[in-house]
Amino acid sequence: EILGHIRRALGRNGPLAGRRVVVTAGPTYEPIDPVRFIGNRSSGKQGFALAQAALDRGAEVVLIAGPVALETPIGARRIDVGTAAEMAEAVWREAEAADVLLMAAAVADYRPAQSRPFKIKRGEGLTLELIPTVDILAGVAARRASAGKPHVIVGFAAETRDLLENAQAKLQAKGLDLIVANDVTEPGAGFAVDTNRVTLIDARGRIEPLPLMSKAAVAEAILDRVVALLSATGGG
Amino acid sequence: EILGHIRRALGRNGPLAGRRVVVTAGPTYEPIDPVRFIGNRSSGKQGFALAQAALDRGAEVVLIAGPVALETPIGARRIDVGTAAEMAEAVWREAEAADVLLMAAAVADYRPAQSRPFKIKRGEGLTLELIPTVDILAGVAARRASAGKPHVIVGFAAETRDLLENAQAKLQAKGLDLIVANDVTEPGAGFAVDTNRVTLIDARGRIEPLPLMSKAAVAEAILDRVVALLSATGGG
Repeated sequence: EILGHIRRALGRNGPLAGRRVVVTAGPTYEPIDPVRFIGNRSSGKQGFALAQAALDRGAEVVLIAGPVALETPIGARRIDVGTAAEMAEAVWREAEAADVLLMAAAVADYRPAQSRPFKIKRGEGLTLELIPTVDILAGVAARRASAGKPHVIVGFAAETRDLLENAQAKLQAKGLDLIVANDVTEPGAGFAVDTNRVTLIDARGRIEPLPLMSKAAVAEAILDRVVALLSATGGG
Repeated sequence: EILGHIRRALGRNGPLAGRRVVVTAGPTYEPIDPVRFIGNRSSGKQGFALAQAALDRGAEVVLIAGPVALETPIGARRIDVGTAAEMAEAVWREAEAADVLLMAAAVADYRPAQSRPFKIKRGEGLTLELIPTVDILAGVAARRASAGKPHVIVGFAAETRDLLENAQAKLQAKGLDLIVANDVTEPGAGFAVDTNRVTLIDARGRIEPLPLMSKAAVAEAILDRVVALLSATGGG
């Protein structure tokens, strides 16, 4: 805890001093009934590392977290959410006053069409109708178009094949400034582990593959790019 | 850690000295694709508390755990599993040499009929065919019929309505010696919290509601009943 306060003090004159950074982290859980849910394999570690790296650079940090078992970085304001819809509401509310939005959460793409009020009893078979969840980034883009904020939006693409193609398509479709692509099937990358291997792709098409490194180091690299993008856009 | 070793030393002459107790804990995750899964809301806390209470009474403890973020109690042999099928395999292998089986895990009842090898891309709609998972307790009952072990089998029923009826039906259908019923919709009971409110029902139909208490205290109460049942069955 002392370390957290020291980091905060050291960051006070950092390149993100006076900037508000909103970070999403972790999975969302979409309820099937009161007991069961559809989840995704996200530990939240990369998002929490991003929050810490933003704090270290002097930013005011809002951390919107799905269900994870991680300590809040000292100095961050944490908002806990469960479902994609709850995350959307929190992101949309916070994004309008944010300079930077880092969407590291592994938000569910699908949810059950209905959530049942009572536990389904064991039976012979069951068909679950899934429907797409709300498109959080589409809502953010609409708000940026009207409010001018956030200045920098960074998305994440966790893929299992066609990594660069899928990530570039998402960058363009969602109007992102930067996308962090990682192949979660690679050893040492993705969920639960403390390391990650990512490729950064920006809106000008620049592709920068980073070596295997700790999630903290990945966060540093992303925040350095964010600082550069903020200067380039002249945001604020 | 020192505390764990002291507890172990104190338990060495306890009422379960020389007994092998197998405990299951936590949820199972049934994969939809490499990223998504069907899970259930179980922290594993009640199961880990049972493992500790069995260790305190001198038992040799095997802890079969689904995906949870909890420390292994000192002295327990832990086996980590992911799916219901993996848990079934571990339970069946360990149960034949066990005096007591405590099935505290919230094993998934349903799993996707197929698990897809690649991440499903966001689209318009999706129908998920679910099929029942393997019936772990049926396999245990079959092994008890032939091998005579485990002597005492304790099941758990997490319900959202008709608690006692559902729990009694499960006790009889699965051939349990004791069932621990809890209504997970009650305040202070069920998932993630450190307290629980349960009702114990035995094979003779005796119903014992316990007050709201810590999961550690619930574990103590259950282990006391297990010790009594072991003497009564003359097991071993």
